[in-house]
Amino acid sequence: MTAPLHEAHPAGSGRRLPDTQQGMRRRNLSRVMHTVGDEGPLSRAAVASRIGLTRAAVSTLVDELIRTGLLEELGPERPGRVGRPGSALTVSGHGPAGIGAEVGVDHLAVCAVDLRGTVRARAVRHGTNRGRPAGPVIQELTALVHQVVAEADREGLWPAGLAVAVPGLVARDARTVVRAPNLDWHDTDLGELLPTEWPLTVDNEANFGGLAELWLGDAAPRDFLHVSAEIGIGAAVLVDGRLLRGTRGFAGELGHVPVRPEGPECPCGGRGCLEQYAGEEAVLRAAGLEPGEDRVGLLSRRAADGDPDARRALHDAGTALGIALTGAVNLLDPETVVLGGALAGLAPWLLPSLEGELTRRTAGPACPVSVSRLGSEGPLLGAAHSVVRGVLDDPASVAGRP
Amino acid sequence: MTAPLHEAHPAGSGRRLPDTQQGMRRRNLSRVMHTVGDEGPLSRAAVASRIGLTRAAVSTLVDELIRTGLLEELGPERPGRVGRPGSALTVSGHGPAGIGAEVGVDHLAVCAVDLRGTVRARAVRHGTNRGRPAGPVIQELTALVHQVVAEADREGLWPAGLAVAVPGLVARDARTVVRAPNLDWHDTDLGELLPTEWPLTVDNEANFGGLAELWLGDAAPRDFLHVSAEIGIGAAVLVDGRLLRGTRGFAGELGHVPVRPEGPECPCGGRGCLEQYAGEEAVLRAAGLEPGEDRVGLLSRRAADGDPDARRALHDAGTALGIALTGAVNLLDPETVVLGGALAGLAPWLLPSLEGELTRRTAGPACPVSVSRLGSEGPLLGAAHSVVRGVLDDPASVAGRP
Repeated sequence: MTAPLHEAHPAGSGRRLPDTQQGMRRRNLSRVMHTVGDEGPLSRAAVASRIGLTRAAVSTLVDELIRTGLLEELGPERPGRVGRPGSALTVSGHGPAGIGAEVGVDHLAVCAVDLRGTVRARAVRHGTNRGRPAGPVIQELTALVHQVVAEADREGLWPAGLAVAVPGLVARDARTVVRAPNLDWHDTDLGELLPTEWPLTVDNEANFGGLAELWLGDAAPRDFLHVSAEIGIGAAVLVDGRLLRGTRGFAGELGHVPVRPEGPECPCGGRGCLEQYAGEEAVLRAAGLEPGEDRVGLLSRRAADGDPDARRALHDAGTALGIALTGAVNLLDPETVVLGGALAGLAPWLLPSLEGELTRRTAGPACPVSVSRLGSEGPLLGAAHSVVRGVLDDPASVAGRP
Repeated sequence: MTAPLHEAHPAGSGRRLPDTQQGMRRRNLSRVMHTVGDEGPLSRAAVASRIGLTRAAVSTLVDELIRTGLLEELGPERPGRVGRPGSALTVSGHGPAGIGAEVGVDHLAVCAVDLRGTVRARAVRHGTNRGRPAGPVIQELTALVHQVVAEADREGLWPAGLAVAVPGLVARDARTVVRAPNLDWHDTDLGELLPTEWPLTVDNEANFGGLAELWLGDAAPRDFLHVSAEIGIGAAVLVDGRLLRGTRGFAGELGHVPVRPEGPECPCGGRGCLEQYAGEEAVLRAAGLEPGEDRVGLLSRRAADGDPDARRALHDAGTALGIALTGAVNLLDPETVVLGGALAGLAPWLLPSLEGELTRRTAGPACPVSVSRLGSEGPLLGAAHSVVRGVLDDPASVAGRP
């Protein structure tokens, strides 16, 4: 009996393989993949000594992984080393790839990432999706997916799965967008609209952004709060290296934490939510900017040029973020807060007031705040890497090229 | 090689026993204990069929559990059943017991709970501990512990461990009280002050209260926020049946979530923290009550009698709780919020405004709020049960009566 090949939200769910003989084989395949991935190129003997199995056992596992295209042999190691030369193993740059896709409010993006973590193909289409029905948007996204898959195919890669980041709340079925206010989508089953030939995972962009930070970020803490923004403000709560999803899958709604309880009304039904002070529209309005293409870029250029309205708007947004984050830090006690998404590019002007609030409102040392290197690439990379992680965590789930 | 007998925070830490032959035996001992505990009295055959092991294997495990005093035989089952009569097994009402202790701001309490979950001995001492040094307080607590242990001993019970609930932040070493503002304790190592003959766990009262709700509460959700109050306001965040502790062990500080960012100063360094509106002192002050013995009881009697000041004070506290909980619910998406500790007794007058805020500020259906049946007993029971759970989860950790 084997576990289902692809479960909803395989990445970050901390799935454990079953406690059987077959499960042990699958766990050992995964250990070989991760060991070669983290430390390779490595000989079979080196893999065996690192994971504590016999060389014969490792050879059987390696042969299977080569057969399914997950590992490659680089040929004999160069002479001069002690002992019989082994053939160095490396994670395959061909074979299965993770296809990540992102539905942004103002763009669509798709990429293919190989098992080594390298982006091998990419396609982007700019233009607003605000208020457009899901059907035509997903049709365009599907065209981009097929374009990227074709490009990846020319490199010897084939999709192991498709993961889609959306700016909204996604149900725990990992298919249904329950609410995406900035797209005006409600209870939209993307499973019906997206290509069906590959295993599908749909998740909130902030969740994929947080996972990208966990897997690809510089600091790599295991307990952190990842705060990101496109039009709305979302957060991903990472606890001991796992994403906290919440009962309905809606955890991380930092944008609707009340900052000033009698503040302006929010479409969520609340008043004075963080988004009313630090959401993109609120900040642009405060800076005297009209909505339009690449507004955040314009805001950041104005702030860099010393424009006082832009500086003040970002200072006030940082204050509101600091108040909301004080609450979140008190509840979660994370190791660090990471600013990602559009917030990363605005960090120079947000951080002083944000950190000021956190420090002023904390008895002990304040929780450190860092800025993601991934910026607005996070959700797309997180989506593609979630598929790659699924393969590394359970190589037996990939039967070979379809 | 065996795992350490008692790790810091054994309960709620989701500890997994090691993946070895010896680990498998220990896991099976635990499965037998839990099966008999949940469904007993049961015959060996019934246990075997429920956990999917042979009767011979189960008999070996059962014999060991009887020898160490964790299971008891009730004698042959009554005749008239099909097959050879088996002897029904039950969890022992003698043998190991969990000793729970609580350092309250205005009281000390100790109890002994047997493996069946029954409180078998108890001692309480009323009187303020505010501002008293830890030494004399813990000396008094130790006297109560020895009194309860002596009483338990007369019932054939012996301590498997001691767990102490304190109204403050506890480091992840499960010994050191980093900060207990209402006692004025700082960086106090209780491991040096408490009896050393039993394994010791010190934890925040809100954490033990949340675990008590998980183990003993009526609804038994696995994802919930347990909010409790003595003098301060604390919360326990339960995620998938596990306590979220935070990097330093400080998670759940709901009392210092900013409710009105420019509100009154709080000793924590912040302004307008929840405790400034819904903490015991703030509510008593708002109700026109002087501090003193059993003030919460007095407040609740006045509210029950329709005293407008008491009613208004509790209404306003409920509003503040609702604002802070809106933020927490947005971040964590729990299945439910449970009011415990002193808040449970005040719920009739807190809930209308609290639930009003939660509903008003939420787009979808608001997170349901329930009231703990355990009330202010939660932390003490949670402490004692954490020891009992440790025994049920790893019966091999108990070598038999010392």
